[in-house]
Amino acid sequence: MTRSPEVIAGVDIGGTTTQVILCATDFGIVGRLEVPTPAAEGGPAMVGAALDCIRRLLDRTPARLLAVGIGAAGVVDARAGRILVASDSFRDWAGFEVTSEVQRALGVPAFLDNDVNAFLRGEAAAGAVVGVPHVLGMTLGTGVGGALWLDGALHDGPHGAAGEIGHVPGFGELPCTCGGRGHLETLASGRSIAARYGERTGRSVSARRVAESAARGDTDALAVYEAAGAGVARAILITAGLLDVTTFVIGGGVSRSWSLVEPSIRRALAAEPPVSGRPLRVLPAGLGGDAVAIGAAARARAELKVDEIQPTTAV
Amino acid sequence: MTRSPEVIAGVDIGGTTTQVILCATDFGIVGRLEVPTPAAEGGPAMVGAALDCIRRLLDRTPARLLAVGIGAAGVVDARAGRILVASDSFRDWAGFEVTSEVQRALGVPAFLDNDVNAFLRGEAAAGAVVGVPHVLGMTLGTGVGGALWLDGALHDGPHGAAGEIGHVPGFGELPCTCGGRGHLETLASGRSIAARYGERTGRSVSARRVAESAARGDTDALAVYEAAGAGVARAILITAGLLDVTTFVIGGGVSRSWSLVEPSIRRALAAEPPVSGRPLRVLPAGLGGDAVAIGAAARARAELKVDEIQPTTAV
Repeated sequence: MTRSPEVIAGVDIGGTTTQVILCATDFGIVGRLEVPTPAAEGGPAMVGAALDCIRRLLDRTPARLLAVGIGAAGVVDARAGRILVASDSFRDWAGFEVTSEVQRALGVPAFLDNDVNAFLRGEAAAGAVVGVPHVLGMTLGTGVGGALWLDGALHDGPHGAAGEIGHVPGFGELPCTCGGRGHLETLASGRSIAARYGERTGRSVSARRVAESAARGDTDALAVYEAAGAGVARAILITAGLLDVTTFVIGGGVSRSWSLVEPSIRRALAAEPPVSGRPLRVLPAGLGGDAVAIGAAARARAELKVDEIQPTTAV
Repeated sequence: MTRSPEVIAGVDIGGTTTQVILCATDFGIVGRLEVPTPAAEGGPAMVGAALDCIRRLLDRTPARLLAVGIGAAGVVDARAGRILVASDSFRDWAGFEVTSEVQRALGVPAFLDNDVNAFLRGEAAAGAVVGVPHVLGMTLGTGVGGALWLDGALHDGPHGAAGEIGHVPGFGELPCTCGGRGHLETLASGRSIAARYGERTGRSVSARRVAESAARGDTDALAVYEAAGAGVARAILITAGLLDVTTFVIGGGVSRSWSLVEPSIRRALAAEPPVSGRPLRVLPAGLGGDAVAIGAAARARAELKVDEIQPTTAV
C-alpha cells in the first residue's frame, strides 16, 4: 500500500504578493502558487487568499497536509500566532489571529513568524547556511531586517524582537524611517539607495536602476552602493564583536545586485578587519524568493513532534 | 556531629593586585586576602601567590575546599583553563595552564574565566542582576570590556569571544588601542577619559581626577564624561536592538563615578530612545571590587555537580 506523501505548506504574505509553497518534510518543493496580497481587504481576505492557494495546490498534488507555516511582514507575536504591528498598507491586520484562523480552516497546526526570521529559518533549513550553528541574517529590501541564529536555533530574544540590526545607531547621521538617526537602513535599503542616489543626482529612480547605472560606471551610483556595502560591513563587525558570529547571509532585493554589493562589503572589511582576526564568511541568500515560505514551513516542521512525521517515500 | 563548612575559592588575578576570597556555596564571603600580583615573575609565581592566599585563608577558617575559580585579564581558553593572550606586563603568562596547576596543588577542580565574564557571572550570582535572564555587562576600566548573559547563562559565543562591545565600530573615528578606529574604548575607558581631557586642556591627569574636576563644574571634564556616557548609551542601544536585551550592568573603575556617568547615559538614551520603545534598565555593579572573584567562584559552583554540594549548615 502506498500512503499519500506528507507535506507542509509555507506561506509568505508580503506587501504586494502572497507566495505559497507545498514542500516535503525534507523541504523539497512539491508545488508553488503566487497571488496578489489583498492587503486593502483586511485580515480574513489575506488569510483567505493563502488558504485558497493551499487548497488549490493540494487539489493538484494529493497529499496529507501536516501543518502550515506563515511568514508575515511587521511585528508578530510568534508564540501567540498574532500580528502585533503592521504597516499602513495592510488593512485590519494588526491584532489579527492568523494561526487560529488557519487552524480552524484546515484542521492542522499553524505557526506564524516575522518574515525576516522566516527568511533566516529558510536559509538555515535548506539554503546558504545549512548546518551552520551561528549566523546573522540580513534582508536588504524596502527596509533592512535582521535575524539571529545562535546555537543552531532562531534567537528572537526575550520579547521576540532580537536581530534588529537595521535600526541600531552607529551608521552616520541620516534620518531613518523609524524616527531614529544613523541606522543601517538609511544606507542599505532599496528605498535609501534610491534616495541617496536622488540626493546626489536629482534623479528619481529605483535601487535596481541605480545598480544598472553602477554597472555602467556611473560614479554616483557606485558611491551609493559603496556606502551601502560599508554599512553592511559595519553591521557585520558589530555582530561579530558582540556575538562572536562569523557567518552572515544576506537576502532581499538589494542583495540580488550581489556582484555590486559583495565587493563593497569585502573592501570595507579589508580596510577594517575584525578585532578577533577570525575570518568572516559573507554569503548571498541561497533560496531567492522562496526563503520566507520555506522558512515558515521549517518553523512548522520544527514545531511538529517527530512521531508525527513519516518518511515521504512510505511503504 | 558538625561537619566542616564547605567553601569555594574565587581568585581575581589583575595587573597589579590578586584578590582571593573564600565563600560559601551561597556566595556569602568567609574570608578575603589581597596581595600584589607578581606579574613580572611569570605564571608559576602568579598562581603560587593565589595558592598561598587560599592556604592562608583555609588556615584561618578551617573548611572543606570544593573548588577554585580564577578570573584573569586577557584572552583565556575557558574550556581548557589556559591563558591565550596576555598583556606585555605579564611575563610568561600566555600559554600558562592555570587550572591544571591549581588542581595539582590543591586536589580540587579549578576553572578559568576571562575577568569580564567573571565580573558578569558575579553580578548575576550575587550582585545587581541576580535572577535577570538577559544582561549585557560592561566594565569601564583601563580598557572597556563586555560580557553577555542570555537565557540565564553566560553566552561567550562559538570561540569564547562574545561580548566585545568595547571594540566594535560605530563610535566615532578616534584610533583605538587595539588598532581599530571609532570603538567605545576610545570614549569610555579610564585611559581614554584621561586622554580626551588631556587633548582639550593640555593637562595630564587620571580619569578619577577628571571626574573630580567635573564635579567642580570644569566644562572640559564634563564634556569628556558626557561623551563617555553617550558612547555607553550607544552600546546599550546596539545591544538592545540586536539582542532584545533590556538590562545593563556597568562596572570598572570609571563606573565608580556613577553620579557623573549615569546622568550622561540617561540623557543620551532620552535623546535617542530605543526603537522597540521598551524601557532599558542601566544599573551600577553591585559587588564593587569583589565581582570578579565572586564570579570566578560562581563559575566553579555552576560546574560542580549538584550532589557534590551539601548545605553549609550541616547536621
